[in-house]
Amino acid sequence: MPYRAPVADFRFLLDHVTDFAAIAATDTFAEATPETVEAILTEAGRMSEDVLAPLNRSGDKHPARLENGVVRTSPGFADGYRAIAEGGWIGMSADPANGGMGLPMTLTTAVNDMMSAACLALQLNPLMTQGQIEALEHHADAGLRDLYIPKLISGEWCGTMNLTEPQAGSDVGALRSKATPNGDGTYAISGQKIYISWADNDFTANVCHLVLARLPDGVPGTKGISLFLVPKFIPDADGNPGKSNSLRVVSLEHKLGLHGSPTAVMEYDDAVGWMVGPENGGMAAMFTMMNNARLGVGTQGIGIADAAYQHALAYAQDRKQGRVGGTGSIIEHADVRRMLAEMKADIFAARAIAMMCAGAIDMARATNDAGWTARAAFLTPIAKAFGTDTGIKVASLGVQVHGGMGFVEETGAAQYLRDVRVTAIYEGTNGIQAMDLVARKLMDGGEAARLLIEAVQTGAEAARNGETDLAEAVWQAAEDLRETTDWLVAQGDLQQRFAGAVPYLAAFARVLGGHAHLAAAIHGDPARARLARFYVKRLLPEVTGLLAHVREGSDDLLAITPDDLAA
Amino acid sequence: MPYRAPVADFRFLLDHVTDFAAIAATDTFAEATPETVEAILTEAGRMSEDVLAPLNRSGDKHPARLENGVVRTSPGFADGYRAIAEGGWIGMSADPANGGMGLPMTLTTAVNDMMSAACLALQLNPLMTQGQIEALEHHADAGLRDLYIPKLISGEWCGTMNLTEPQAGSDVGALRSKATPNGDGTYAISGQKIYISWADNDFTANVCHLVLARLPDGVPGTKGISLFLVPKFIPDADGNPGKSNSLRVVSLEHKLGLHGSPTAVMEYDDAVGWMVGPENGGMAAMFTMMNNARLGVGTQGIGIADAAYQHALAYAQDRKQGRVGGTGSIIEHADVRRMLAEMKADIFAARAIAMMCAGAIDMARATNDAGWTARAAFLTPIAKAFGTDTGIKVASLGVQVHGGMGFVEETGAAQYLRDVRVTAIYEGTNGIQAMDLVARKLMDGGEAARLLIEAVQTGAEAARNGETDLAEAVWQAAEDLRETTDWLVAQGDLQQRFAGAVPYLAAFARVLGGHAHLAAAIHGDPARARLARFYVKRLLPEVTGLLAHVREGSDDLLAITPDDLAA
Repeated sequence: MPYRAPVADFRFLLDHVTDFAAIAATDTFAEATPETVEAILTEAGRMSEDVLAPLNRSGDKHPARLENGVVRTSPGFADGYRAIAEGGWIGMSADPANGGMGLPMTLTTAVNDMMSAACLALQLNPLMTQGQIEALEHHADAGLRDLYIPKLISGEWCGTMNLTEPQAGSDVGALRSKATPNGDGTYAISGQKIYISWADNDFTANVCHLVLARLPDGVPGTKGISLFLVPKFIPDADGNPGKSNSLRVVSLEHKLGLHGSPTAVMEYDDAVGWMVGPENGGMAAMFTMMNNARLGVGTQGIGIADAAYQHALAYAQDRKQGRVGGTGSIIEHADVRRMLAEMKADIFAARAIAMMCAGAIDMARATNDAGWTARAAFLTPIAKAFGTDTGIKVASLGVQVHGGMGFVEETGAAQYLRDVRVTAIYEGTNGIQAMDLVARKLMDGGEAARLLIEAVQTGAEAARNGETDLAEAVWQAAEDLRETTDWLVAQGDLQQRFAGAVPYLAAFARVLGGHAHLAAAIHGDPARARLARFYVKRLLPEVTGLLAHVREGSDDLLAITPDDLAA
Repeated sequence: MPYRAPVADFRFLLDHVTDFAAIAATDTFAEATPETVEAILTEAGRMSEDVLAPLNRSGDKHPARLENGVVRTSPGFADGYRAIAEGGWIGMSADPANGGMGLPMTLTTAVNDMMSAACLALQLNPLMTQGQIEALEHHADAGLRDLYIPKLISGEWCGTMNLTEPQAGSDVGALRSKATPNGDGTYAISGQKIYISWADNDFTANVCHLVLARLPDGVPGTKGISLFLVPKFIPDADGNPGKSNSLRVVSLEHKLGLHGSPTAVMEYDDAVGWMVGPENGGMAAMFTMMNNARLGVGTQGIGIADAAYQHALAYAQDRKQGRVGGTGSIIEHADVRRMLAEMKADIFAARAIAMMCAGAIDMARATNDAGWTARAAFLTPIAKAFGTDTGIKVASLGVQVHGGMGFVEETGAAQYLRDVRVTAIYEGTNGIQAMDLVARKLMDGGEAARLLIEAVQTGAEAARNGETDLAEAVWQAAEDLRETTDWLVAQGDLQQRFAGAVPYLAAFARVLGGHAHLAAAIHGDPARARLARFYVKRLLPEVTGLLAHVREGSDDLLAITPDDLAA
């Protein structure tokens, strides 16, 4: 069934949740006129519907494969990639000085959402490149920037992230890859990296790897790590791909999903690399790259959720079963209606959170205001984890709506579940996101959290005239969240926070979703208001159980010993 | 990593949750002495560990396939099947008059749990046969019983269920298969059936299909359906497989998981069949078969959950990552500990519910008491849906514990998630189970529900001396559940109940899980008590949100129109 880009949702969120007017009113984003926004949503939507969506099954059925050291991509992916590049969607938010469009992250997020929904396996390629562009913009010297960024933006070349090693996953500081100065300003990079998404392809003239490695005098741990740009082909004097660098794709993983995206083990053997950022400053550069990618991955979850929802809805509209009234289809069954409403309500909530996060990034960039920066940082792990958890939940419900057909691969429902499962793992597992939230993001004494909660409560107070019971429910949930936030902040022992990190993040997302749905109840059409009521009355109450979990802290949890678990 | 049969868990549940002593004290189950129980758990556990578990990956990598109309099974499956048959595990609870062991369903449930954990794809075969044996015991005439049941119990032959047709899934009454009397007491069966698990194999001498079809004068809907036994080979005068019947496997499905289990489209073309039960009495016979199978499928979910848990635990014990104390493995991270504790606590809860259900079935059979019958009927949809939902949740957490390795198929973590996903769909989707619970199972005015809730509260009151806070929490959750049960019973419009059916079932399961964990806190060792505290303080509070959802009823949900959902 054809994918339909959710342009109306984006318009609504830009108007009523992220205050896009304020973003567009800044000097930085003066180009983002209403006409531009409309053109972007429409064009990217059309490309996603017409060009990318038809590739989604192809990528699953004909996985990328390694032939004589070269990655052969799925049928049609080269054309799909070209369409993305030619649309300008890779460098939408990149600096116009290098060929980017300099548009707000809110718009890039909307476009990434649609491209992910249409063909996640392919979209992962430009998403990695977007992260690389941002890292180079912030940390590379002018020579590297001028050479690489325009080619990454144009899609001539593409970029990857090389962080993980077999013994260094979530613990990046344990990496062993080495970088030795060559004496000419370049470095010899050696080591093995794993889980490298889109490590190679047969449709770009070069592949640019950002590789974390340790200088000879680099101290152990994260403080001794530097970042290097290591291209597949070493640019010649004219900046064109020259001789092959000393690196290779060792193997591709056989994965649960995302078959169209080649995930590689990479071997570097004195490959030539250029340092990005200062010596031993690799982690800062990596965080730039990952912050962008975290929002992007959350958005992937939302995109897949939407695609899975549309797929299930079409099935439910079409499938006749049982004696029901109305359309005579299974959509008339209360429980099927419940599943579809839950899917749609959660997608809206997750999408709103991603857009709030993107909006904060934009305002931070445009105003340099510390408050916006803190808000963006606070929302990033929530957008990542809740977006991807929603992707998994909705894709699983999509299978369920299909009944037996959901388990049969030909239907396509199962692919969404297989594809989206990794989004809760890569770019930092959702557990790591939650730990980031309760540790690093509460290091300000909870100020960023409280300001967000206040914004929710202010919204609820303003809504009390119209939607009294919904406003009251959202206000109270925010109040409960505030109390638990205070409790978390008061815990000096981080273990006390970590034990409830995941339910805390989930509760925060639920409350932010309530905020967005309340806006929908006030400013939206009756259909949005009905969905908002569903969310606030039936899903928001999950907050009570989640916060109870958080408040238990770590003592009783850690009292459960490894031996207990093995008993 | 090797599977370890959870024999200690079963011993605990038999002693402290299902009151197995009472079951063994009945005349019906006098054979179930402590020595027999011990021998069964040990032997079935050993077979599951040593014979079945090594086949699990083989079934996934080398799916059953159709060659020239014949199903070729996965390598090793024939040997595994023989081990199950020779152990006597197929007919454990079957009538000794036909070669069964006549043992309680509680023990069969424990054995099914272990076999499912070890190799779900293969275990589905004997599970289907168990359902067929029960249907034949209750509904077939003596001739059919004497011929078929001994061969099904010995494993010489096996059985299938043929309910679903393309237009008749959850709505069985819409089926079109025809049965025409041949005039000699047999019937000519024609039609197409889909989703037939283990429709054929290359290790039993015959395959016996129970097929729902309509007699020429059968009225439309479920009241005009009869049940027929249609063997692959028509038994000759000596009862041995004779000439081929007029039926064939048309194709096998390409599924998300359970690759070792052939799922077929079957074509019957005037195949010879024998009626089971009275004319137009097919639904009653089918429910006998399905009731058994529903508990069995719930148990499949629990088995896979346990296997996935053990797999993840081994990984977490082994994997070094990050600077943590203790063992130096990721199990020291609070969030990893939280995931593992949640997995283990939920497995115990789901297993306890399945055992309570099996225990009620046993007491009903032994005493013919209407109260036990009603309790068994009430617990069956809960055991099915909560067991399988737990299977999916735990398998997904198992992937998460593995991090990136979880998405790589070689690890095996993903297979559990793929395999278990269908258990929430087959034998009646979990939505159908929940609708059964709030409609049919509350038709007694809520008596069975209230008696269960009272049992929970009585247990909590008895526990108030020892585990005060846990007992209070369980008592209160049961009280909230009682109030919502009363509300549901008062709703004459079934839509009001259906809208919240799924969260109601989940809440009921949570409370029953609290009951079992409270027993563990009182009667178990300190490790069980610590896990019980985790469950009651961190997971049981989900009940509040779930019941809030239920109490919203259907009005606001059904106000969300199909057009709203498509907007």
